[in-house]
Amino acid sequence: MAERRAVDVPALANGVLEGNRSVLARAVTLVESRRADHREAAQQLLMELLPQAGGAHRVGISGVPGVGKSTFIEALGTMLTGAGHKVAVLAVDPSSTRTRGSILGDKTRMAKLANDANAFVRPSPSAGTLGGVARATRETIVLMEAAGFDVVLVETVGVGQSEVTVAGMVDTFLLLTIARTGDALQGIKKGILELADVVAVNKADGDHERPAKAAARELAGALRMMTPTSESWQPPVLACSAQTGAGMAEVWEKVTEHRATLDEHGELSPKRATQQVEWMWAMVRDQLLDRVATDPAVQAELPTLEAEVRGGDLTATLAAQRILGHLGL
Amino acid sequence: MAERRAVDVPALANGVLEGNRSVLARAVTLVESRRADHREAAQQLLMELLPQAGGAHRVGISGVPGVGKSTFIEALGTMLTGAGHKVAVLAVDPSSTRTRGSILGDKTRMAKLANDANAFVRPSPSAGTLGGVARATRETIVLMEAAGFDVVLVETVGVGQSEVTVAGMVDTFLLLTIARTGDALQGIKKGILELADVVAVNKADGDHERPAKAAARELAGALRMMTPTSESWQPPVLACSAQTGAGMAEVWEKVTEHRATLDEHGELSPKRATQQVEWMWAMVRDQLLDRVATDPAVQAELPTLEAEVRGGDLTATLAAQRILGHLGL
Repeated sequence: MAERRAVDVPALANGVLEGNRSVLARAVTLVESRRADHREAAQQLLMELLPQAGGAHRVGISGVPGVGKSTFIEALGTMLTGAGHKVAVLAVDPSSTRTRGSILGDKTRMAKLANDANAFVRPSPSAGTLGGVARATRETIVLMEAAGFDVVLVETVGVGQSEVTVAGMVDTFLLLTIARTGDALQGIKKGILELADVVAVNKADGDHERPAKAAARELAGALRMMTPTSESWQPPVLACSAQTGAGMAEVWEKVTEHRATLDEHGELSPKRATQQVEWMWAMVRDQLLDRVATDPAVQAELPTLEAEVRGGDLTATLAAQRILGHLGL
Repeated sequence: MAERRAVDVPALANGVLEGNRSVLARAVTLVESRRADHREAAQQLLMELLPQAGGAHRVGISGVPGVGKSTFIEALGTMLTGAGHKVAVLAVDPSSTRTRGSILGDKTRMAKLANDANAFVRPSPSAGTLGGVARATRETIVLMEAAGFDVVLVETVGVGQSEVTVAGMVDTFLLLTIARTGDALQGIKKGILELADVVAVNKADGDHERPAKAAARELAGALRMMTPTSESWQPPVLACSAQTGAGMAEVWEKVTEHRATLDEHGELSPKRATQQVEWMWAMVRDQLLDRVATDPAVQAELPTLEAEVRGGDLTATLAAQRILGHLGL
């Protein structure tokens, strides 16, 4: 323990507030750490920075592999820094591991943005549970806002429930898709269309422009048949091309219009407050289930219990009672 | 305690297996009871009947109020008993209370079916948590199957997450909708379209036939852009009229075709087994969260914690730690 240097929280807080990039990077690393003493210092740091947070437009960007997400984020981010914004790009990817080259990957993917003085590109925290990765990303948003970034883009790679998690930490959820080019390719993951505040059909260039616009119309029709995310907002569908830049300004205009509409209708603050409380409960739930899953007696009996429930030899109710019994509950 | 007569489980089991309707009704009441001794007897009964269960086609039927769900279920159920099926109709409605006339409501709604010797119409268990209502309904399915019903229709009224819960207890999930007749009426609740194995646009009669067929085409287009519920099945969209009977046979044909396809591809048994295991975990999770919510120390501090988290004065992580701390975890 002697070699564990204590974290200088006030110095970190000052560095972050001054927008010092290397201090900011260290603060993010602290927030991502799973070491108990780091976790404690990270919470102190966040408590100090919370009053300065909240100033950014938090935008989630989702889409299955192949829709051109990296190119889109690079083009959007560059457009925004060009317009005077300070842009942070974060990611939620529970499958990533830093050592497998995720940093290199992100820097390569978004070479221009990564070298932009007004942008801060941070790859996903390394592999862990979705809950752990999401916690780090949520807390990193606080750091970015305290450091003066006014746009935070949170990318989700679409693994498991990551879109739902990201939708729960942003003001506006942008779904990126493309015109379907064959039966093998499904453009939109189940349950994701309903999360979207804005939908953009990318790769609307050259031969793909017509099918992209047709897909946009079809999606707009489908969305009109569904209950929208907010009473004051009907999710628009636009065609764009990150490659040529066509339609990119219009997509961003809709994203800002969405947030402005929420704000005008007094929905933004309550939305953010509710997201925080739901996140608190998600952490309570995750940690309780973690206790169950790691309990030795439960671990010993679980394979038998699950097999019996699967085989129809035991009711799920009795199996649940036995699991809870091991925990003395 | 003296007046609490012990439940004669073997007699109940025999009566259910013989298809005795009044015994079946008593067995359902036992399964729905929240009294500890009843709960224990109910589990004994279910363990005895489980080997005889599993024989029905379990079909979830969902749709927002106004789509004509009662008329549809009455027409479908009557068609099925006419074809020699034994049909049970259950419901999951966490908002219902028996005393407020739910029994009367259901019997009135489905007068013909309720008086059909080959049908058994049971209203939703009385108001409780969705988890509690769903437990009773899942266990009632076991009773109905043991009693020889070969079609179990589970209706969901679309409150909160009830559709997701019902989709998790059936083989086939049928979504009922209508052509949109104005901006005020949204035909499909968020996130429900993705659960559907079959979609039926009801009220395709008279002047409504054309818009219903147009809506069916539009929905089919939207569904083709989404990842289907199973690799071997693309959810079809049909227009029908429960009023005139038009298209009803075709809807049922698609429902049976869905189950046959799952079965052929070896997906049905694993789907049911997975539903049981997920349900077991859902009960573990619900009961753990219930302990948290009813803990006196947590209850005392919760309003302050939530207010601080909402107001941005406390991180969600620290708040979650405090809640878990009260439970000695």
